[in-house]
Amino acid sequence: DEAAKAVTADLPTISWRLTSSFPKSLDTIFGASDVLAAALDKITGGKFTIKVFAAGEIVPGLQVLDAIQNGTVEAGHTASYYYFGKNPALAFDCAVPFGLTSRQQTAWMLHGNGMKLMRELFAEYNVVNFMGGNTGVQMGGWFNKEINTVKDLEGLKFRVGGFAGRVLSKLGVVPQQLPGGEIYPALEKGTIDAAEWVGPYDDEKLGFAKIVKNYYTPGWWEAGPQLSFYVNKEQWEKLPDAYKAAWEAACQLAHNDMQAKYDANNPQALANLLQGDVKLRQFSDEIMEACFKATLETYDEESKANPKFKKIYDDWKVFRNNQAQWFSVAEQSYAKFAFAKKL
Amino acid sequence: DEAAKAVTADLPTISWRLTSSFPKSLDTIFGASDVLAAALDKITGGKFTIKVFAAGEIVPGLQVLDAIQNGTVEAGHTASYYYFGKNPALAFDCAVPFGLTSRQQTAWMLHGNGMKLMRELFAEYNVVNFMGGNTGVQMGGWFNKEINTVKDLEGLKFRVGGFAGRVLSKLGVVPQQLPGGEIYPALEKGTIDAAEWVGPYDDEKLGFAKIVKNYYTPGWWEAGPQLSFYVNKEQWEKLPDAYKAAWEAACQLAHNDMQAKYDANNPQALANLLQGDVKLRQFSDEIMEACFKATLETYDEESKANPKFKKIYDDWKVFRNNQAQWFSVAEQSYAKFAFAKKL
Repeated sequence: DEAAKAVTADLPTISWRLTSSFPKSLDTIFGASDVLAAALDKITGGKFTIKVFAAGEIVPGLQVLDAIQNGTVEAGHTASYYYFGKNPALAFDCAVPFGLTSRQQTAWMLHGNGMKLMRELFAEYNVVNFMGGNTGVQMGGWFNKEINTVKDLEGLKFRVGGFAGRVLSKLGVVPQQLPGGEIYPALEKGTIDAAEWVGPYDDEKLGFAKIVKNYYTPGWWEAGPQLSFYVNKEQWEKLPDAYKAAWEAACQLAHNDMQAKYDANNPQALANLLQGDVKLRQFSDEIMEACFKATLETYDEESKANPKFKKIYDDWKVFRNNQAQWFSVAEQSYAKFAFAKKL
Repeated sequence: DEAAKAVTADLPTISWRLTSSFPKSLDTIFGASDVLAAALDKITGGKFTIKVFAAGEIVPGLQVLDAIQNGTVEAGHTASYYYFGKNPALAFDCAVPFGLTSRQQTAWMLHGNGMKLMRELFAEYNVVNFMGGNTGVQMGGWFNKEINTVKDLEGLKFRVGGFAGRVLSKLGVVPQQLPGGEIYPALEKGTIDAAEWVGPYDDEKLGFAKIVKNYYTPGWWEAGPQLSFYVNKEQWEKLPDAYKAAWEAACQLAHNDMQAKYDANNPQALANLLQGDVKLRQFSDEIMEACFKATLETYDEESKANPKFKKIYDDWKVFRNNQAQWFSVAEQSYAKFAFAKKL
């Protein structure tokens, strides 16, 4: 006991900077960093603290990986599919088309090979990764006209990210990369035809419902997008064991909190969005089947070209197929009946 | 900084006993207590430790609430619906028929009024409650013959717990209360006709597949049964703030870990169970509709008789209906398509 007391008394005072990929206005996704920082501060009695910076304050939102890799800041909060351009395999840490749901992603990370495989890949970037929240299945986005057939996708200028953009371009879509703040004016001017963002709670903030009236579901390219906390590897290794454990537990608390907050807030936001003349629409079977086929082709191509992708995909695919089968049995047979019923 | 260091150095060495409702053989549900203890030990550098006891070692499995209330032990891990007999309202901390799924339960606790309402109720028992894992939608159980119509339920001796037993007795079922270890012999001797336990991973351990061949889904009475950690109120209030924060974060880590472990392990267990002559069956619409109707009647009766139940039910019901509607939109439209597809 005396030894333990000595260890605790000797713990250093540490202050880190954490750079987020998100603006403060997205309170749920940005807020995970504040939740982490508050928990860590309390657990360590104010000895290990994190100062959180929004996107652009010290590092641009899409350069979090580089900033942690270079040691510009000690820690970050981001979506790993933003770094699809460096290696599409990084997207398995976040979301890939027709992939894992929120719970399944957490299961792959903690009790499949997910964390092990992603840590191996992130080590090349001098980063140690941790789970940092999830949004759940996202919406398919806002479309200025109805999309019923694959033909309707031809030439469609759709604001959508890396992996999904690559899949959809096989079907004639012209993917557009735009930061959150530029989507609304682009939709208003008609320089894009459609845009996906997150889900009702965040979409409501950006005001799309005022100018675009077709709100599609589901976002099959983001079934359970996981956010991640990154830590610079040298900084991580210098931490005392107690602080490593405190960081780990505080990350898991923030991970839980984000999904819970989205789940709790999305229903009211959806009701608000549908109060006017917005129509909730479902992608047709024809479109879903075509997108699934294009996804399979993309996975095959990337697996042939990219051994690091293939290594993770081969493990992930088996896990994903087993999860899909099991979730069909208990979760789905319950959900199909119960979610259609009002108490 | 000097002040903070002094606070940390002064933290007391604390050792608690935690009594579980579960046997060590149920490694996932029992294991959550070990996961909590290990995290807490690491975070506090060995100064705040938990010694975990299995069901029956110092307290019988179904008397955890009493043991914490009386201060026999400082902490416990249990399922709050075991205390249905004290007040059915306690079941909202775990699962009630046609209730919340795992994610929805966590959302109600953290970002609905769930934690606030349950803390109020548990304060009457001198207990502070924390989330301590979830199993996901459970299976409907093992039946010695096919159950197709409501008539087939008449006189059926079914091992099933408190709330579901009360609902099913309206349909002629004769609910049986049996601890885990006594189910197999009762099924073998034919003193019961059917039994529900948890899901594939735990059901496989108990060997039911050898003697009963109809494996039903879904367990509509346990859509997202939450386990809980209990702490004796006086003990909790004596903890330094840093230890409270460490306990809270370690509980959330254990909460995540249990659901992830069940999700990761259930698919293989289900495949094992279905290798022989076991048939996977779904409760018919006729049975599901009748059970739903009987559930509504039970909620109405209990709300009229029990103001503490009504207070929680009224809040919970609105949250549950909103969740059901929202999950139908994004999660369900994705799951219906994607879970039926193999990559």
